[in-house]
Amino acid sequence: MEARVRALRLHVRSRTHGYNVLLGANILPSLGERLRSLEVGRRVAVISDTNVFRRWGRIAVRSLTAAGFSTLAIPLPPGERTKNLKVAERIIGKLISAGHARADPVVALGGGVVGDLGGFVAATYHRGVPFIQVPTSLLAQVDASIGGKVAVDHALGKNLIGAFYSPLLVLSDISTLRTLSLRERWSGMAEVVKAALIADPRLTRILEKDLERLSRAAVPSRLRDVVARSAAIKTRIVSRDERESGERILLNFGHTIGHAIESATGYGPITHGEAVVAGMRGAIAISVELGRCSSADAARALALLGRFPRPPRFRAPSMPSVLSAIWRDKKKQGDSIRMILLRGIGNPVVERAVPTPLLSFGVREAIASLA
Amino acid sequence: MEARVRALRLHVRSRTHGYNVLLGANILPSLGERLRSLEVGRRVAVISDTNVFRRWGRIAVRSLTAAGFSTLAIPLPPGERTKNLKVAERIIGKLISAGHARADPVVALGGGVVGDLGGFVAATYHRGVPFIQVPTSLLAQVDASIGGKVAVDHALGKNLIGAFYSPLLVLSDISTLRTLSLRERWSGMAEVVKAALIADPRLTRILEKDLERLSRAAVPSRLRDVVARSAAIKTRIVSRDERESGERILLNFGHTIGHAIESATGYGPITHGEAVVAGMRGAIAISVELGRCSSADAARALALLGRFPRPPRFRAPSMPSVLSAIWRDKKKQGDSIRMILLRGIGNPVVERAVPTPLLSFGVREAIASLA
Repeated sequence: MEARVRALRLHVRSRTHGYNVLLGANILPSLGERLRSLEVGRRVAVISDTNVFRRWGRIAVRSLTAAGFSTLAIPLPPGERTKNLKVAERIIGKLISAGHARADPVVALGGGVVGDLGGFVAATYHRGVPFIQVPTSLLAQVDASIGGKVAVDHALGKNLIGAFYSPLLVLSDISTLRTLSLRERWSGMAEVVKAALIADPRLTRILEKDLERLSRAAVPSRLRDVVARSAAIKTRIVSRDERESGERILLNFGHTIGHAIESATGYGPITHGEAVVAGMRGAIAISVELGRCSSADAARALALLGRFPRPPRFRAPSMPSVLSAIWRDKKKQGDSIRMILLRGIGNPVVERAVPTPLLSFGVREAIASLA
Repeated sequence: MEARVRALRLHVRSRTHGYNVLLGANILPSLGERLRSLEVGRRVAVISDTNVFRRWGRIAVRSLTAAGFSTLAIPLPPGERTKNLKVAERIIGKLISAGHARADPVVALGGGVVGDLGGFVAATYHRGVPFIQVPTSLLAQVDASIGGKVAVDHALGKNLIGAFYSPLLVLSDISTLRTLSLRERWSGMAEVVKAALIADPRLTRILEKDLERLSRAAVPSRLRDVVARSAAIKTRIVSRDERESGERILLNFGHTIGHAIESATGYGPITHGEAVVAGMRGAIAISVELGRCSSADAARALALLGRFPRPPRFRAPSMPSVLSAIWRDKKKQGDSIRMILLRGIGNPVVERAVPTPLLSFGVREAIASLA
């Protein structure tokens, strides 16, 4: 079965082991075969959310069963609120009760929430069991599933309890993208544009030409190339800097202000992608103001970002609430606000300390773009 | 200050980084200076239990303050029941609220429970912050603080949620041992004897000569040597096999039956050391029965173990309850019972599948030794 399905193969280096990211259409049915070749235990836990599992669970489980695995399906309520320690503890209770051992793998079948939570369970159960990512959202395929960051949320902040824990395999079946809502596609496309703007002028041109068609259409071959290029950028960066001590920070382009908008609006009314689009606009405005970026390149980037739909029925947050969320978040790094700015298309730069008035300016631009 | 205090230095290699184990009398006051030389953040969380913190907290905090750190003390109720995800989440809440950042270290000041729990917090907060072990029990100094295993318990089993997460430094002040109860000393001494029997004939002879004096006395220089030799054995083994894929399994000598006795009696009436002593007796009985070990060496080892005090007012568990705890535990590895046996003093061997009747025999011997 495996031989018949062609998949693009990217390789990620990590401190613990290298692993492959496989990308292709209709490769989910090969999951069992591919897992068997990794020589893991025979009991597989499939962590998923009920929406994804209804659509793709049967194919995954059938493939695993056919390859000789016994399967424990753990479908969870969809949404970020599932991503906490209590749910992780409950999942681990199920694994213990079912006799899952140190060599038995955990498969995360779903979007970013499932990958983060499933990865946290895999990282901590028995101090680490084999972990397989099967991302089914565009966001997860181009970004979240690659690089080994796993986490759950704390009541006081997102992703504050986690680990760096690399999967043994990432299997990205782009056919699963066709069941996404339009808004979810656009959300994922934000990270595609981010990857393009920080690292890939050619991908930027592809997006400039075709953004709407790529975001709306049901998996044209063109989308496969776009997913592959974005995943390749993520793969390259995290292979060189797994622990975010250097280059990996560039992936935060658009995220300083973006995260703060999500936080200030309570992680509900705006998607991650919508917030990141606004955040990139703010960051570009600051880049121009600081003289880092030519106005021609900034205009190109802003024009591309301007083609994203606004969040529907969205009440924009106040500037002070977003600024204070940025400061709260930045306790992590120290006493000044570090941001990723653009020097040009495909040419990012780390600004170690953005002056406060300019930060306010960027936040204002970001908020205004959401109106 | 640092220069005046002499400490023995052992070096541990780990996949992520090497670290030192410092051993000496009255070295706790040098904690701040030594931490400063590691170039970590300035906010230090000191996780401890109320008993240990009452005795040693002030010295630790004073040393940290003198070295320019701000200190957040988190004293917890003593005992294994504190070692769970709920407490870990609460500690992380305190760290978030106090603004602890990615570079700010967590110090675990206490015995094995504090080290495991503090280490789990350090491993997961912000996906890992600098971690310092300051073990204050004999058990933790000779064994638990070295090797990077951290964990919390699940309601369904001990240490089932954890990580391999190496400290930046282990600072073992043997002066802290003088506030241990006699029973705690003997408990730690069980791991010393274990280390001797699997790896160090010379340490075995020292113990044969002086076991009672070493266990009872208030930190003679001889005890320092014994702690150092045991810690060196642990250091050597985990440096060669951090992830327990090979040699590290030898450290489980006495623990298959020992853990099962603790589990079958509900982790209360018997100390870890008492259980491990009984477990080693069972393992030696099996070794002889299988013809692995000369009766002369077995007699020597059994004589040494026979000098440990029995647990006071202890109702020995039934054989079936211990056997079923072994089988439950062994789900981790597969379908047969693997045990560490002795070929002779300092010469352990992995027995991949102990025949069931012999296992029963060993358990019977272990239980009988507790009566």
